[in-house]
Amino acid sequence: MSRLQVLLVAGTHGNEINAPWLFDQWSRNVDLVNTSSLEVIKIVGNPKALDLRERYLNRDLNRSFRSDLLGTAIGCDYEVERAKEIMALHGESGSSPCQIAIDFHSTTANMGSSLVIYGRRACDLAIASLIQFHLGLPVYLHEMDSSQTGFLVENWPCGLVVEIGPVAQNLLDIRIVQKTKLVLEACLQEVSKVLYGQAHFPPSLIVHRHIKSIDFPRDVDDIPIGCLHEEVQGNDWKPLKTGSPLFSSLTGYLEHLDEREEVVPVFINEAAYAEKKIAMSLTKREVLPVQENWKEELKQLVQN
Amino acid sequence: MSRLQVLLVAGTHGNEINAPWLFDQWSRNVDLVNTSSLEVIKIVGNPKALDLRERYLNRDLNRSFRSDLLGTAIGCDYEVERAKEIMALHGESGSSPCQIAIDFHSTTANMGSSLVIYGRRACDLAIASLIQFHLGLPVYLHEMDSSQTGFLVENWPCGLVVEIGPVAQNLLDIRIVQKTKLVLEACLQEVSKVLYGQAHFPPSLIVHRHIKSIDFPRDVDDIPIGCLHEEVQGNDWKPLKTGSPLFSSLTGYLEHLDEREEVVPVFINEAAYAEKKIAMSLTKREVLPVQENWKEELKQLVQN
Repeated sequence: MSRLQVLLVAGTHGNEINAPWLFDQWSRNVDLVNTSSLEVIKIVGNPKALDLRERYLNRDLNRSFRSDLLGTAIGCDYEVERAKEIMALHGESGSSPCQIAIDFHSTTANMGSSLVIYGRRACDLAIASLIQFHLGLPVYLHEMDSSQTGFLVENWPCGLVVEIGPVAQNLLDIRIVQKTKLVLEACLQEVSKVLYGQAHFPPSLIVHRHIKSIDFPRDVDDIPIGCLHEEVQGNDWKPLKTGSPLFSSLTGYLEHLDEREEVVPVFINEAAYAEKKIAMSLTKREVLPVQENWKEELKQLVQN
Repeated sequence: MSRLQVLLVAGTHGNEINAPWLFDQWSRNVDLVNTSSLEVIKIVGNPKALDLRERYLNRDLNRSFRSDLLGTAIGCDYEVERAKEIMALHGESGSSPCQIAIDFHSTTANMGSSLVIYGRRACDLAIASLIQFHLGLPVYLHEMDSSQTGFLVENWPCGLVVEIGPVAQNLLDIRIVQKTKLVLEACLQEVSKVLYGQAHFPPSLIVHRHIKSIDFPRDVDDIPIGCLHEEVQGNDWKPLKTGSPLFSSLTGYLEHLDEREEVVPVFINEAAYAEKKIAMSLTKREVLPVQENWKEELKQLVQN
């Protein structure tokens, strides 16, 4: 029998309340979610922030899983301590170890349901290809971004983020809860198929590769002098060409896209990213052939 | 010449950032907004909360304009002190007095643009009828609700709230900014017409009269056991009949409307109202004939 345990995380950000509510409902009715017979551990990432309905207390938990922070002595920020605690419990070498981590988020951006993977780890690419083949979800490949590091799922041998939107912070929305449940069950079903040798991998994985993030245009006082242009706002995943309007104001300010090639915007106007100076991220759509080693590494991780 | 000054307030709630942004842009370009030649004073209601991007520091400013609070000695909550300060500056007897106050808000509810008036003051009903006739906006008549009192605009001889949605908290959205500007200009244009004796009142004002607010169904730990039913979520202003589903969960919970008559829901899932235990408010649509005394009182207020 496999030792496989899948870690499911909700409420890594305390003001994203739909996945935690699903987990709470699930605790009251153990048959609510079909786990495809897998062993799962479900946790609230940042319970103190969830109680306060804040994104975090001291620092973003989902930027706190950095080796330099995890290696520090006790007495740091709450989120760093919580990151260490989660690792000690459910890290690969924890007391109740998990091999795969799935972290459920929501976004104010009009992105629908999507997956985010960090870098090009074979196992992540393999499981993303299976889930994309199952549900048709877009995949945001976040890489080469030294300003945003320390994501939770990077600390497991296999891990991905599920983003569901649009929903305002601190808003319980049955449609978001239902979509979260749908993606969660699909993820577990695909992992289960790998476990039992029944996975059917697609020939390719379509990713939207991170190019860069761009901030609102700001004045010397750091006040935005332009909003997202109305042709951009709400149009996540829709390609922008050179010269497309990006930002505008009521006072005549207008800024255009200066990328030479077509790009695809994501996380357009995610409320939590204003503090990170991100008005949107730009990606390029790429088709990656599914590699044999991706499949093998995932099978090995899951079946051993 | 009339002494008329109109008070325009944005950022009464610090996490509703679109109207404050419009005001800031307007400060940089005085011709941005057409004031129809009226004297206007524009202020940020809660500047400290806006800096922090929080709804408020100590208590909701828009529930702090209560005579028992305004009459207290110094040393109270920040918002009570700020309410006193605004009254001392721009109250009817203030150092730079205003006779009409318009308070610009945003909501996470899918309400579009609407007006809110508090009670049945002749001047409020008169100006609401003019703006409704101009723009076709729905009007929420908030009355007979002892649990929600102390609204800013009630402290001026004439005052109303403008609500624009849906938009998440702390999200700058050009569409919301544009709608705010449109309603602001229409309000001023109608007041200007009254001032110059050119107002054309409609025969009637359609209001949605407050009946009651209802909370999410909760368990003994105060956790919601149901979300708004998907037939309700996002359907502000759309009538509900007896027996319409209101709340549901993934675990089979289902609650229906038990009102005997058709009601119209508003402020469905406004994020800020969770703390007030309001999942939505129910209203009844009523047609009020525009009364002569409404017109006369407004004319007297504006023209004197």
